[in-house]
Amino acid sequence: MEFSSKLLENAVNEMSQLPGIGKRTALRLVLHLLRQPEEQTLKLSKALENMRTQIKFCKSCHNISDVDLCEICANPHRNQELICVVEDVKDVMAIENTSSFRGLYHVLGGKISPMDGIGPHDLNVVSLVEKVKSGQVKELIFALSSTMEGDTTNFYIFKQIKDYNVLTSTIARGISVGDELEYADEITLGRSIINRIPFEASLKS
Amino acid sequence: MEFSSKLLENAVNEMSQLPGIGKRTALRLVLHLLRQPEEQTLKLSKALENMRTQIKFCKSCHNISDVDLCEICANPHRNQELICVVEDVKDVMAIENTSSFRGLYHVLGGKISPMDGIGPHDLNVVSLVEKVKSGQVKELIFALSSTMEGDTTNFYIFKQIKDYNVLTSTIARGISVGDELEYADEITLGRSIINRIPFEASLKS
Repeated sequence: MEFSSKLLENAVNEMSQLPGIGKRTALRLVLHLLRQPEEQTLKLSKALENMRTQIKFCKSCHNISDVDLCEICANPHRNQELICVVEDVKDVMAIENTSSFRGLYHVLGGKISPMDGIGPHDLNVVSLVEKVKSGQVKELIFALSSTMEGDTTNFYIFKQIKDYNVLTSTIARGISVGDELEYADEITLGRSIINRIPFEASLKS
Repeated sequence: MEFSSKLLENAVNEMSQLPGIGKRTALRLVLHLLRQPEEQTLKLSKALENMRTQIKFCKSCHNISDVDLCEICANPHRNQELICVVEDVKDVMAIENTSSFRGLYHVLGGKISPMDGIGPHDLNVVSLVEKVKSGQVKELIFALSSTMEGDTTNFYIFKQIKDYNVLTSTIARGISVGDELEYADEITLGRSIINRIPFEASLKS
């Protein structure tokens, strides 16, 4: 692609570093910004800069936060003894959107994946184990994705904490609400039969 | 969507103002930036800011440029008497990539579209007519998109300049190279038969 302006070329190149954004899309986005009032671009550029330079991670749960201890960890109305272990900040947001969990979170920052060179020491595992050791936690809920890497990570953490007095659980795997059985994959369907729940219990949720 | 950080929320909101980027995609992009070194975000934010505040439009052809007269207009080796009229900066880049045009451009900045409230006075038409009046132009090539709005714009400009001594042409419409006839639309196929060219001429291009 030939550009008539270095400034344009530079903006397109930086924009196309983002995942899923190629050169053509980047050009479209940048030309859109040029047609909009100058403030819009300045607000975008400032918001990105502030976000990257000023954002903090909660010192307890490692969630993204503007302060040292995030709103969730600092909330006295939440159950401090129940911790949901998730991979990512996005997972905290997804679970918070359901309004069905009133405990705390622990964000690992990924999952163990030897193929990508990510080992346990690249994740926030130590601080989780410390929390369990200190006796303040009654139950850990593993809410990682149901993949080989997710299972490996669950098992690694489980081994570290199994000698301490803590309950562990994983979120239920089964047929999604609204899904038709014939389109479900075999593993999910099989597991949903093995891990069936009493009918009366299902009426409550 | 509930955010645990105002800084994050702000960055996601600004990012999702871009066309085709919803809140979820914006969040994915912003979280990606958080995982990358700080320089990447700062370079992106600076590149956007510089682009928007410092970019110029060529005073002759209205193409995007870093200087008052763009590289193409300032190039003495290009044919100054042949002007290709295009809608947009992207079209200049597309034609330049073919390396088959050695004249100058004139960027209208859009096309006449009463539905979108765009009239001739919102476009760079006056400066084009002035160029023709001054006698420096021998031929205008209309290279607008083949839509009702494009045709209207072509015709509007044609009416303004037809009394001056200038050739006008439009780019050829026909079956794309590599396309199969059976999949071509009827209008394109019909026009390509009416506007057929001598076989010997087709061998040269």
